[in-house]
Amino acid sequence: MPSKIPPELKIRLAKIKLFLCDVDGILTDSSIFIGLGEEIKRFHIRDGLGLVMLRQQGIKVGWVSRRPSTATTRRAEELKIDFLEQHDSGKVAIVEKLLAKTGYRWDEVCYLGDDVVDLGVMRRVGVAATVADAVDEAKAAAHYVTRANGGRGGVREMVELILKAQDLWKNVVAHYAA
Amino acid sequence: MPSKIPPELKIRLAKIKLFLCDVDGILTDSSIFIGLGEEIKRFHIRDGLGLVMLRQQGIKVGWVSRRPSTATTRRAEELKIDFLEQHDSGKVAIVEKLLAKTGYRWDEVCYLGDDVVDLGVMRRVGVAATVADAVDEAKAAAHYVTRANGGRGGVREMVELILKAQDLWKNVVAHYAA
Amino acid sequence: MPSKIPPELKIRLAKIKLFLCDVDGILTDSSIFIGLGEEIKRFHIRDGLGLVMLRQQGIKVGWVSRRPSTATTRRAEELKIDFLEQHDSGKVAIVEKLLAKTGYRWDEVCYLGDDVVDLGVMRRVGVAATVADAVDEAKAAAHYVTRANGGRGGVREMVELILKAQDLWKNVVAHYAA
Amino acid sequence: MPSKIPPELKIRLAKIKLFLCDVDGILTDSSIFIGLGEEIKRFHIRDGLGLVMLRQQGIKVGWVSRRPSTATTRRAEELKIDFLEQHDSGKVAIVEKLLAKTGYRWDEVCYLGDDVVDLGVMRRVGVAATVADAVDEAKAAAHYVTRANGGRGGVREMVELILKAQDLWKNVVAHYAA
Repeated sequence: MPSKIPPELKIRLAKIKLFLCDVDGILTDSSIFIGLGEEIKRFHIRDGLGLVMLRQQGIKVGWVSRRPSTATTRRAEELKIDFLEQHDSGKVAIVEKLLAKTGYRWDEVCYLGDDVVDLGVMRRVGVAATVADAVDEAKAAAHYVTRANGGRGGVREMVELILKAQDLWKNVVAHYAA
Repeated sequence: MPSKIPPELKIRLAKIKLFLCDVDGILTDSSIFIGLGEEIKRFHIRDGLGLVMLRQQGIKVGWVSRRPSTATTRRAEELKIDFLEQHDSGKVAIVEKLLAKTGYRWDEVCYLGDDVVDLGVMRRVGVAATVADAVDEAKAAAHYVTRANGGRGGVREMVELILKAQDLWKNVVAHYAA
Repeated sequence: MPSKIPPELKIRLAKIKLFLCDVDGILTDSSIFIGLGEEIKRFHIRDGLGLVMLRQQGIKVGWVSRRPSTATTRRAEELKIDFLEQHDSGKVAIVEKLLAKTGYRWDEVCYLGDDVVDLGVMRRVGVAATVADAVDEAKAAAHYVTRANGGRGGVREMVELILKAQDLWKNVVAHYAA
Repeated sequence: MPSKIPPELKIRLAKIKLFLCDVDGILTDSSIFIGLGEEIKRFHIRDGLGLVMLRQQGIKVGWVSRRPSTATTRRAEELKIDFLEQHDSGKVAIVEKLLAKTGYRWDEVCYLGDDVVDLGVMRRVGVAATVADAVDEAKAAAHYVTRANGGRGGVREMVELILKAQDLWKNVVAHYAA
């Protein structure tokens, strides 16, 4: 977490009303665990708590993945994620539908993605972000690269940046520190 | 593990009769593995052995988590943990009840937590500790930050600090080195 | 990923029509997860997407492992891998049969392996590659050692090198960045 | 792997006829994965291949653990480990019985352990070894500390050291490089 947010980024972050992210590589470290039964994914507890905090402060949260996965569905349900999109019909088209449905504009969206399949959405959103271990093309397209890797706190870092830019983070900390 | 314990910390550690810690992020590296069935957590074998050693030297052990989990219950049973609290009614209230029940005072408690939800308890206990990969707010509130990360030996490091401050560690080593 | 491919390596890469790799240690980080049921392997999502991209650009893909594993079979099916060989009859003999069946020559094959059992194949192929955490003998036998470790993007790095050397990578990126 | 084995260590390694090691922390990275069913352990494929190579060169292999585990039993069966001891009756007593049964002497044994419970055996064997992430007491008691961590190739490194000291490693490599 940087000690100061650059002014230009802060202006972008202040407008965010919808937080979207990819699943594999962002909410996970790109690992998928495969055996005989359903695949297993490894999520990060502090990323999850961060998304709950974001929702509690009034920002909507959605996950956009190309691969349908029961593991993702179950984690989304536990965290009460607002929007869950898991299909391979093109990420730009998926987000466009979501904006049409909710009335949000592209510049009100923060999106985290880690691979070339995320580039189309990253080019359009108000805040395009990626994780420290993303592919080079995603880093080049990002307004912000988290210090943490995917699945290891990158989402939490982005959540705190948004809440700090909107002056909401201090409320969260005060609530728990009492 | 530091070669010497600072004198002020040693005085605090010498009073500890109850060792409490969070589960996710402390006994684990914040990973939760989700598939179709029950969630899986990854525990660390040397953390577990450390907690057994602590109990054998007369110090009570408890785990305090916001998320009920069968994985946690099973690991607690294997290690014969004295107190297991898994519910989301506020960590300060949970520990207060535990103190009322057992008769211990706040300054006789060592607590390890890694996130903002732990700040309330950390502000009250005799020894507030956290792990190397905790959030900034937890590190700022801690009397001691372990060199190890969560789920990778941070608990064991804290256990040894307590046993050394109470001059009990040499007994443990002597027992096994015979 | 190096910013420039050495000319001699580029000539070798330009001829590749068949991409073969070991499974454990290359598509995974050498971990196998064993409990009561079927063993679990951890694959990397961006390695998988890279292999799909390779197939879509007309290069065949095959996996060659000494240990039969349901986890490997399932991942191969998901990615529609062209050739899957899982038996312990000697890797050189296995690849020779594959070449006889497909009509490809040794110098049209790129092979990634990480251990001494891969040395025979590595000595014969047009591009012998290995990962950053391979054994010393595999590194010594390789034309290229990936910057990434096994199971952490080494396969993806090799895929991009081949596509770049054949001037196909820009098509892949352009497709997704639209 | 060091490029040269110190002469004093080489003399010790040359006598080894029985290779023993702990399981958790040595064959694994100390992680145990706990959910609803049987616990899961993560083993390393190149450690396993190393132990097979050791057996093929005539050196016996045994695992000595305090915690019975189905995961360990299954991995031992796959690798055809000669001796599997999983009970908590004291590691020195267990190894003494093994020596009585097989006729080997303490100085013909190499033992890898990572925690204080291993100190008794480490004090007695011809070659006491441990891994890079072992506890300080185990490192202090070891003739050799592997460069690799537990579960990440430490066993393989030790296997190669023994085979090199006994001038057998070149046979193994030659077999596969053909």
